[in-house]
Amino acid sequence: MPVIVQKFGGTSVADLDRIRNVARKVKREVDRGNQVAVVVSAMSGVTDQLVNMTRQLSGLSTPSALEEYDTIVSSGEQVTAGLLALALNEMGIPARSWLGWQLPLVSDAAHGKARIHDIKSDAIMESLNEGNVAVVAGFQGVDEHGRISTLGRGGSDTSAVALAAALKAQRCDIYTDVDGIYTCDPRIVTKAHKLHRVAYEEILEMASQGAKVLQTRSVEMAMNHGVRVQVLSSFSDAEGTLLVDEEEVVERKRITGIAYSRDEARITLTSVANIPGVSAEIFGPLADANINVDMIVQNVSEGGAETDVTFTVPRGDLKNALAVVEKSRDKIKYKSLNSDDSVAKVSVIGVGMRSHVGIAQEMFKTLADKGINILVISTSEIKISVLIAEEYTELALRALHTAYGLDTE
Amino acid sequence: MPVIVQKFGGTSVADLDRIRNVARKVKREVDRGNQVAVVVSAMSGVTDQLVNMTRQLSGLSTPSALEEYDTIVSSGEQVTAGLLALALNEMGIPARSWLGWQLPLVSDAAHGKARIHDIKSDAIMESLNEGNVAVVAGFQGVDEHGRISTLGRGGSDTSAVALAAALKAQRCDIYTDVDGIYTCDPRIVTKAHKLHRVAYEEILEMASQGAKVLQTRSVEMAMNHGVRVQVLSSFSDAEGTLLVDEEEVVERKRITGIAYSRDEARITLTSVANIPGVSAEIFGPLADANINVDMIVQNVSEGGAETDVTFTVPRGDLKNALAVVEKSRDKIKYKSLNSDDSVAKVSVIGVGMRSHVGIAQEMFKTLADKGINILVISTSEIKISVLIAEEYTELALRALHTAYGLDTE
Repeated sequence: MPVIVQKFGGTSVADLDRIRNVARKVKREVDRGNQVAVVVSAMSGVTDQLVNMTRQLSGLSTPSALEEYDTIVSSGEQVTAGLLALALNEMGIPARSWLGWQLPLVSDAAHGKARIHDIKSDAIMESLNEGNVAVVAGFQGVDEHGRISTLGRGGSDTSAVALAAALKAQRCDIYTDVDGIYTCDPRIVTKAHKLHRVAYEEILEMASQGAKVLQTRSVEMAMNHGVRVQVLSSFSDAEGTLLVDEEEVVERKRITGIAYSRDEARITLTSVANIPGVSAEIFGPLADANINVDMIVQNVSEGGAETDVTFTVPRGDLKNALAVVEKSRDKIKYKSLNSDDSVAKVSVIGVGMRSHVGIAQEMFKTLADKGINILVISTSEIKISVLIAEEYTELALRALHTAYGLDTE
Repeated sequence: MPVIVQKFGGTSVADLDRIRNVARKVKREVDRGNQVAVVVSAMSGVTDQLVNMTRQLSGLSTPSALEEYDTIVSSGEQVTAGLLALALNEMGIPARSWLGWQLPLVSDAAHGKARIHDIKSDAIMESLNEGNVAVVAGFQGVDEHGRISTLGRGGSDTSAVALAAALKAQRCDIYTDVDGIYTCDPRIVTKAHKLHRVAYEEILEMASQGAKVLQTRSVEMAMNHGVRVQVLSSFSDAEGTLLVDEEEVVERKRITGIAYSRDEARITLTSVANIPGVSAEIFGPLADANINVDMIVQNVSEGGAETDVTFTVPRGDLKNALAVVEKSRDKIKYKSLNSDDSVAKVSVIGVGMRSHVGIAQEMFKTLADKGINILVISTSEIKISVLIAEEYTELALRALHTAYGLDTE
């Protein structure tokens, strides 16, 4: 019998009525003749509340504090798993809950952000074969010492994909509050449409470019294990978006989707000495300060002895980043330091880039035609990102959506 | 090194400040050179909230529903155990939390009201010997199939006493919101004083007589395993009351304490046929209706062919009980049925009764002198209970407290 893994996030199980709604979605898969394992998150708000209590008591800076943190926050998923199993039983669907340590889902001991080593699937498979639905508490595992671990925020997606791999599931359905992956944000681009299939690599670029639907690690895992992931809405019955191998994306458009992020700030250092090691002097202290630098460009000025360096950081880190750079002024010896927090990053993404030429050129021309100045460019094999003034974000997205022929499905 | 078990109930860990306060009480025992295992309840209100959610989803009438119930409600103690361990670590006291399945505390599979089979103490003892405080989630265990079980409401007391027995603890300190066991309710009898020592048997009679401080099962377990239990307040530093063997109660007063209960209603059936089996006809259906009958007296009327039967039930069950009895009228053939829900039960309790005579006589005379009529009497080896009109409760308690010489410590 085919095994289907379903995963429901916090908003999908936010109250008892929604849990009953989830139970009906589980029942539908059972009625179709599938064996079903359901992975659930904590009811929305619960994890934040638990995390907040731990932070009031502790700096969470020691390994044993993080072990307790995991014991505490994992209780949210424990409750949801039990509640959904109750709701299913009440509907006449035999079901039982499985906690991380009961499977067991064995992880390393990096508490608070543990990585999955192994899922023992014997016991849960036996229970599925006896005709039970398995309701699995997401986000949690157990380390080799028998302490509860958690997989980091959003870890329930990873639990679901890992379980789907362990159970050799036919499909892993990730239910969220959106009904799939779109060519672009439909709130901005009204002509955006839902994608039926997206390659794993594309969704990875989209997620890191600001279109947060799935946890990155879960997509990597799906890609590595060939798990067919479907993203769909728990509040509608519409078909979702299927994540597949690049080869399965039949229709090779030049661009699959367009992502954007407003959480950007630009920093430019002018006339930096163009000598070996200067990059390390700039970016080392920023890394030490836990500031995530994204786009970096370096332009050699006239003569070649000096260079301008521009990079972007998350907007909330701008003040800190400037302070860190200023502290290193003696070593970096830049002439001036300027910044701008009214910038946005727009990215066009698609595996079609590998086989089509002129994609970048088309992007630059489209933006130029609209009078939009490009501040920074960065590219990967399947993505081109540009930094622009934030006020042009919507205009840029709509123009690019039309230019790449995405307006018509 | 001596092992001390401490237990803190829901009101003692109701918020983060109180959890920090508990951590200080733990530290004090550590500073005295003890190895400390702490058993905690859920933060007050949490268990009710979780139970309420389960009831909204399910009738909780099947074994698998009760398994999920236990998975859900046990999360409350899980959170408190983690939080207290965090608070202790933050104070520089090495500590770790232990869940029921981690010890493990093995129970039977009677989910919702499981009984403890065994506590494996090797792992926790090793951790204590390494210098850690053990923070144990109360109320929970694990059945032989690896499903979480709970011990029923108030089960954390039982967890604590069982753990004290398993660890051969020197003492089991039960912290509550009262600071010990009193000769009588101090809100009514201002001359009531705290008892330094009470025999297990006495506290059992007191608890069942309405002075609810400790869960009955935990006292029975302490008595069976010779665990020295101390009841004391988590909100003061006053010495508490020690539960000991009867032989250790040095000062043999005639009476140790006086208890009362207003949760009583009287039912009388007149002129019942005095034939074999009639009692079963009366009380069988009441038991079937889950109504707990307490005091029972039967007076043979003139001639001996008929008898009057009087008994008490919890006040809230009176209406149901009358309906049950009326339904059996054809079988019982009583002449009239009358009832009174303005009655109270007053009990004098003490192991001293075994060696002193005239205790009952003194009780009856004291009440008669105050003009208080006795409706029903029942006795055990170490207890005499009388049913009186509720309005005389305070008068009776004060008069008896004086008569048995309890006013002076």
